[in-house]
Amino acid sequence: MLVVMKHNAVQDAIDTVVNTIQDMGYDARPIPGEQRTAVGLIGNDGRVDSSRLEGLEGVLEVIPVTHPYKQVSREWKEEDTHVHLPNGTVIGGEEMVLMAGPCAVESEEQIMEIASRLREAGATILRGGAFKPRTSPYSFQGLGEKGLELLARAREATGLMIVTEALGPEHVDLVADYADIIQIGARNMQNYPLLRRAGQRGKPVLLKRGMSATIEEFLLAAEYLVSEGNDDVILCERGVRSFDNRHTRNLLDLSAIPVVQALSHLPIIADPSHGTGVRSKVIPMARAAVAAGADGLMVEVHPNPHKALSDGQQTLFPEQFEELMTQIDVIARAIGRSLAPGLGASDRVASGV
Amino acid sequence: MLVVMKHNAVQDAIDTVVNTIQDMGYDARPIPGEQRTAVGLIGNDGRVDSSRLEGLEGVLEVIPVTHPYKQVSREWKEEDTHVHLPNGTVIGGEEMVLMAGPCAVESEEQIMEIASRLREAGATILRGGAFKPRTSPYSFQGLGEKGLELLARAREATGLMIVTEALGPEHVDLVADYADIIQIGARNMQNYPLLRRAGQRGKPVLLKRGMSATIEEFLLAAEYLVSEGNDDVILCERGVRSFDNRHTRNLLDLSAIPVVQALSHLPIIADPSHGTGVRSKVIPMARAAVAAGADGLMVEVHPNPHKALSDGQQTLFPEQFEELMTQIDVIARAIGRSLAPGLGASDRVASGV
Amino acid sequence: MLVVMKHNAVQDAIDTVVNTIQDMGYDARPIPGEQRTAVGLIGNDGRVDSSRLEGLEGVLEVIPVTHPYKQVSREWKEEDTHVHLPNGTVIGGEEMVLMAGPCAVESEEQIMEIASRLREAGATILRGGAFKPRTSPYSFQGLGEKGLELLARAREATGLMIVTEALGPEHVDLVADYADIIQIGARNMQNYPLLRRAGQRGKPVLLKRGMSATIEEFLLAAEYLVSEGNDDVILCERGVRSFDNRHTRNLLDLSAIPVVQALSHLPIIADPSHGTGVRSKVIPMARAAVAAGADGLMVEVHPNPHKALSDGQQTLFPEQFEELMTQIDVIARAIGRSLAPGLGASDRVASGV
Amino acid sequence: MLVVMKHNAVQDAIDTVVNTIQDMGYDARPIPGEQRTAVGLIGNDGRVDSSRLEGLEGVLEVIPVTHPYKQVSREWKEEDTHVHLPNGTVIGGEEMVLMAGPCAVESEEQIMEIASRLREAGATILRGGAFKPRTSPYSFQGLGEKGLELLARAREATGLMIVTEALGPEHVDLVADYADIIQIGARNMQNYPLLRRAGQRGKPVLLKRGMSATIEEFLLAAEYLVSEGNDDVILCERGVRSFDNRHTRNLLDLSAIPVVQALSHLPIIADPSHGTGVRSKVIPMARAAVAAGADGLMVEVHPNPHKALSDGQQTLFPEQFEELMTQIDVIARAIGRSLAPGLGASDRVASGV
Repeated sequence: MLVVMKHNAVQDAIDTVVNTIQDMGYDARPIPGEQRTAVGLIGNDGRVDSSRLEGLEGVLEVIPVTHPYKQVSREWKEEDTHVHLPNGTVIGGEEMVLMAGPCAVESEEQIMEIASRLREAGATILRGGAFKPRTSPYSFQGLGEKGLELLARAREATGLMIVTEALGPEHVDLVADYADIIQIGARNMQNYPLLRRAGQRGKPVLLKRGMSATIEEFLLAAEYLVSEGNDDVILCERGVRSFDNRHTRNLLDLSAIPVVQALSHLPIIADPSHGTGVRSKVIPMARAAVAAGADGLMVEVHPNPHKALSDGQQTLFPEQFEELMTQIDVIARAIGRSLAPGLGASDRVASGV
Repeated sequence: MLVVMKHNAVQDAIDTVVNTIQDMGYDARPIPGEQRTAVGLIGNDGRVDSSRLEGLEGVLEVIPVTHPYKQVSREWKEEDTHVHLPNGTVIGGEEMVLMAGPCAVESEEQIMEIASRLREAGATILRGGAFKPRTSPYSFQGLGEKGLELLARAREATGLMIVTEALGPEHVDLVADYADIIQIGARNMQNYPLLRRAGQRGKPVLLKRGMSATIEEFLLAAEYLVSEGNDDVILCERGVRSFDNRHTRNLLDLSAIPVVQALSHLPIIADPSHGTGVRSKVIPMARAAVAAGADGLMVEVHPNPHKALSDGQQTLFPEQFEELMTQIDVIARAIGRSLAPGLGASDRVASGV
Repeated sequence: MLVVMKHNAVQDAIDTVVNTIQDMGYDARPIPGEQRTAVGLIGNDGRVDSSRLEGLEGVLEVIPVTHPYKQVSREWKEEDTHVHLPNGTVIGGEEMVLMAGPCAVESEEQIMEIASRLREAGATILRGGAFKPRTSPYSFQGLGEKGLELLARAREATGLMIVTEALGPEHVDLVADYADIIQIGARNMQNYPLLRRAGQRGKPVLLKRGMSATIEEFLLAAEYLVSEGNDDVILCERGVRSFDNRHTRNLLDLSAIPVVQALSHLPIIADPSHGTGVRSKVIPMARAAVAAGADGLMVEVHPNPHKALSDGQQTLFPEQFEELMTQIDVIARAIGRSLAPGLGASDRVASGV
Repeated sequence: MLVVMKHNAVQDAIDTVVNTIQDMGYDARPIPGEQRTAVGLIGNDGRVDSSRLEGLEGVLEVIPVTHPYKQVSREWKEEDTHVHLPNGTVIGGEEMVLMAGPCAVESEEQIMEIASRLREAGATILRGGAFKPRTSPYSFQGLGEKGLELLARAREATGLMIVTEALGPEHVDLVADYADIIQIGARNMQNYPLLRRAGQRGKPVLLKRGMSATIEEFLLAAEYLVSEGNDDVILCERGVRSFDNRHTRNLLDLSAIPVVQALSHLPIIADPSHGTGVRSKVIPMARAAVAAGADGLMVEVHPNPHKALSDGQQTLFPEQFEELMTQIDVIARAIGRSLAPGLGASDRVASGV
């Protein structure tokens, strides 16, 4: 941390900064410059609260030099984290992983039909909301535990793993009883009791980026999970707020993918469905996410999007998903990766296909 | 709701829109124009999910005409909501209300000293965090229930009402046992289980605007509270995300004050401490908030900001708060309002001061 | 255009809206709803100024239904615009086009060396600034006309077409004398005298999106060019302002590519160099832009980025550019497109390679 | 400038940074820390281009410590700049200055009528556009030189000074022949040829903040003016881009006022008309700007806003302006300032009013 003094700061002010830093238990090193002095704080362990320094007399700015996250950083752990799931899917390795399914679980028929088609198309993880966070209290809020049960039945039938959202710490155990991956939504990225509880539960967690979260805040939210002892964290870029939402609901920040991959060992996937909010933009942006190096995709697909109870406008038809799979297979190879083999692969091999 | 068709939409596409609207239980009215047709959805009760319509063939845009919030709107209730507190303070009336105190409760000495000075200066509500949401898991997280007890003692000693934050639904009862107003923080503005629980508890709730929440999302979050039967909701503008955070931490959106006052009957206050994040900007922006018509202010004040365990850089010295009170007293009068009388006022009157 | 009335608007207010619309020379059609009345303005020719209506008594909102741009829209012209350049390059067709080169022209040696390597690698257009818009008046401002001469020499030597920026209307003729494409930079996207002059000059124009320009503003800026009679306009997404610029300078909005392609017949390319501002992010985002469907790329490449006089941190080494070309060749094919053949291609064919 | 190395940067990488800095003509000082080394660049004169350093091997971040602007900074000149106008108005002193008038000059009758009413109400400067920058090429673009002549006639009749916009360098001389203050609009904040020409002309310049300009970019744009020898620069905050433009067109960033006043000696005013874009929000935000410490206001007023050819929805009625004057008079006094005396003041005194 670097405390930059005003050009006219008196020696007393500099001394006060030095003493305050020492008071906080760190070393202080004044660095005189031509125009002004700066004071370096040495030994920052990520716990320094800059606010005590920012308010001192003569201080112009306090500039963080060390990043405040620790265990999620590449400096803490050099090699990529691989999240292993019971059906053999590995997230964060060389292979790209596909999570797909409807916005919300609506009925047994719906979830069974789509799960079966997605398995055929090559997805290995089924998404579907049982508890839905809705901007309006009057919107459909999901089937609740009934939805979780239907997801479990779809897993039984297809072998697809289940990812579904927990809305609060009080839901974590229930969701974890059914799901293979606990999802934490964008609105809850800084819901700390939820993060702590999910971190303690010992199941993989998918953490979505908040709507206006900086990369640093995103990684610090993941740090809450990892600092509870859970290394199986998957990050998800899902679009951020922008000044123009007339043609897309959010702005999918694909540069977050290489940025996070440089800073952290955790895998990061992209959600082009929420990231655009418009069906016709989902496929181009899904392809772009793969080309940018995403470790996977989460895509909304519904047997009949026009009848979907939520998010229908951003949901693919099954045929569109199948077409997408063909395109991203080639793109993944172009950058030295490949799609994770689908669950039907061995059958197909067995049957000589 | 208006469904705007593409200029080359065929009649079949228009018919599908009309039928879908009728399917959803509303009336549809096609409006042919020179360049294109639009279809009006008549009878929108705030529960229409536009996504079914947005994805239909030939649809260019779906434009909401009715606002999706209901009970928080001025159309639902014309006259201003007044929130009455046990010590006589009324929020939302002609008088402006002052909430002040440290970012976090740190010790009995600290909270007693500042409470007493704030009462002297004219505040009627004491703020102070017992449970602190912190971006980093390694930062000071508050004293927890011990902090709540200290706040209650400060109330006993001074008569100031207590506003303090609940981080999750599981905290609501505990916080409500001690506090007069339950605060819901910016990070939790869309934490729906928390909103529902707080709405059910029957105590006034202070709802802070999320970091990138639109006015509509802000009012819909309040709708969650009100739809649970709680009318005593106070809104709080506390700064939003912007593209420039070098000189202020957030961008205090003061135009939200007259905007919300036109749309909703709920009171709205401003928090210039979080809204700027910099001590030297708190006073100008506090004055500006009053001039813009805020129903109150929430300001961080600490006996010794340099020793504060959090947010010291944006916390006023007690003398600064006293000076602020003098200035805003005049400004409030300039726009036909006044400051709520302090709790010491009657004594002072009684003693002839 | 739809004028939405307040729910309690009286008949007089509605009549005034109707009369005002008729005054403006359009038809008005009141549409009574359950909660409120709206008045449709029929016959909007893109010239309606909504401000007269927005301020009227009883008006809640004025909602644009028609888009204000005309000649740049797909509704005006269904088929894609192809911009033909003298060396055979076509922008906007099935083939993707590569524009590359240094941020600024620095010397004959520099521009000749890089031009030759870029031609080898398959680019067909050379970029390079002669007049540089710099945030600080103390930064290097470009070689001026001398830079234009060097670009022309590089064209002569390699056959690459030249794209370079004009900073003001007074530069347009000079730049057009040397360049094959006149570039208008992001800072000047709404410099209307410059747009008009560039539109009149009759040479292709590359228009960069402004730093916080909406898609509509972007297309309206292009409308200035086209309305002067110039159809050869190429749009360029180059990153927009975001709330997090710690790890990338701008946020490259790749969804702008499919969005613009749906609304307009003009070609759109991406500039991942300015779009990220960081060398290590340029390649992933260049690949992503191709996967999203961009009609071309503009990339900064320098023989020795560490010695570049400007933008060195976002400039590729020539070897990186060559590697990029290999990757995007595969990606382009995956989505049914291909790279434009390089200028050396026929030689290579001729020589049996 | 501080060059922060990656934690695993080898000594060679550090040496390269040191050598590069020395190559650039500055001193380098390595600062070893616990986790990483940083290298300070000593002697920064505001001309350092960080890009050469950002791209070097082993470099994590380059952090600017010195601000790149010079002559506009308080470190360059401690005392406030006062801009003196021929009619005795001083901008930047203790007194607050009012600039008011229509968006565009429309006719002699219009401008004469409003000028006379504004003079009566206490304004001393008349605004009015002769050349209008319009987002759409099909909107009313202003009366041009004819508009300038009408403004000059209004000055002759009332004594009000004239502020009006120049759209490009080629207009500066013409505008300067008629106007007392040359306005540079938000869209042109980084139109460098225009800034240079306006800086050279020797008349006061009003510089509006760009729609997404950071404070640093805003001050650097002013540096272009001042570095040409023109100290008479007035800054104007007029609202920035935000993620919510449903209820206000822009987000008026009032904290920019105290921020700029701390960093620069130049006066700064606020434009609540463009800052909100909605008539009913102009008065609250104008009051707030005064309370925040603005050195003046620029407000749109029209004899009949409903008939205005542009921006009618954000334009005050004359009676509203008169009411505003009364309110801000009290607010200015509350913070130790006052309104500049109107031009009619002495007459009124003389006539005993």
